Amino acid sequence: MYTEKVIDHFTNPRNVGEIPDADGIGDVGNAVCGDTTKITIKVEDNRIKDIKFKTFGCGAAIATSSMLTEMVIGMTLEEALQVDDVAVADMLGGLPEQKMHCSNMAAHALHTAIEDYKKKQ
Amino acid sequence: MYTEKVIDHFTNPRNVGEIPDADGIGDVGNAVCGDTTKITIKVEDNRIKDIKFKTFGCGAAIATSSMLTEMVIGMTLEEALQVDDVAVADMLGGLPEQKMHCSNMAAHALHTAIEDYKKKQ
Ligand code: FES
Repeated sequence: MYTEKVIDHFTNPRNVGEIPDADGIGDVGNAVCGDTTKITIKVEDNRIKDIKFKTFGCGAAIATSSMLTEMVIGMTLEEALQVDDVAVADMLGGLPEQKMHCSNMAAHALHTAIEDYKKKQ
Repeated sequence: MYTEKVIDHFTNPRNVGEIPDADGIGDVGNAVCGDTTKITIKVEDNRIKDIKFKTFGCGAAIATSSMLTEMVIGMTLEEALQVDDVAVADMLGGLPEQKMHCSNMAAHALHTAIEDYKKKQ
């Protein structure tokens, strides 16, 4: 049901936690299952310098959040805003159809964090 | 949103894994979110001697599965069949309403494992 890459990111998630003095915060909920994901970012020269995530979500939510943080570190904010749930699922080698709603949260939380950063400038 | 007991069982889950020579197996899916939970049991003298769970579910699913395994070890099969999602949620000090669908899986998987054991006798 799950690719090796999904299992890897689920059992050994990268960039878990919360940046205490974050430049942007995105805290979003999932309408389907009621889970939440929080992403905090540090921004330097218009690029994502650091990113951490926290979720109470399922294995698919953990894996997509972990994968997304690895993908966007070093990206400009414009590039990071282009990363959506489909791009992350692709990098994971795919996700079961009924778990795509879980993968939405990571990208949504990231975009919210970037908008939060922009608003604060 | 979550009680200390939920957070404890989520971050430090008990009885995770799979019993290789299990007497009963319950593998169930969740209609709401598409997650799955697998419970394996060892039975001796009509009592649950050992139990392990595996889930790709969310934090609430992990916490309820962990709590349930602690509750039912040593119980007779009849006692274990009385344990439902509400009993487990109570032992955890409650769960948010929108996460009750996650807590169903643990009890459902246990009951399926007990029925599986009985069928094999
Ligand atoms: S959201 Fe799937 S088990 Fe909780």
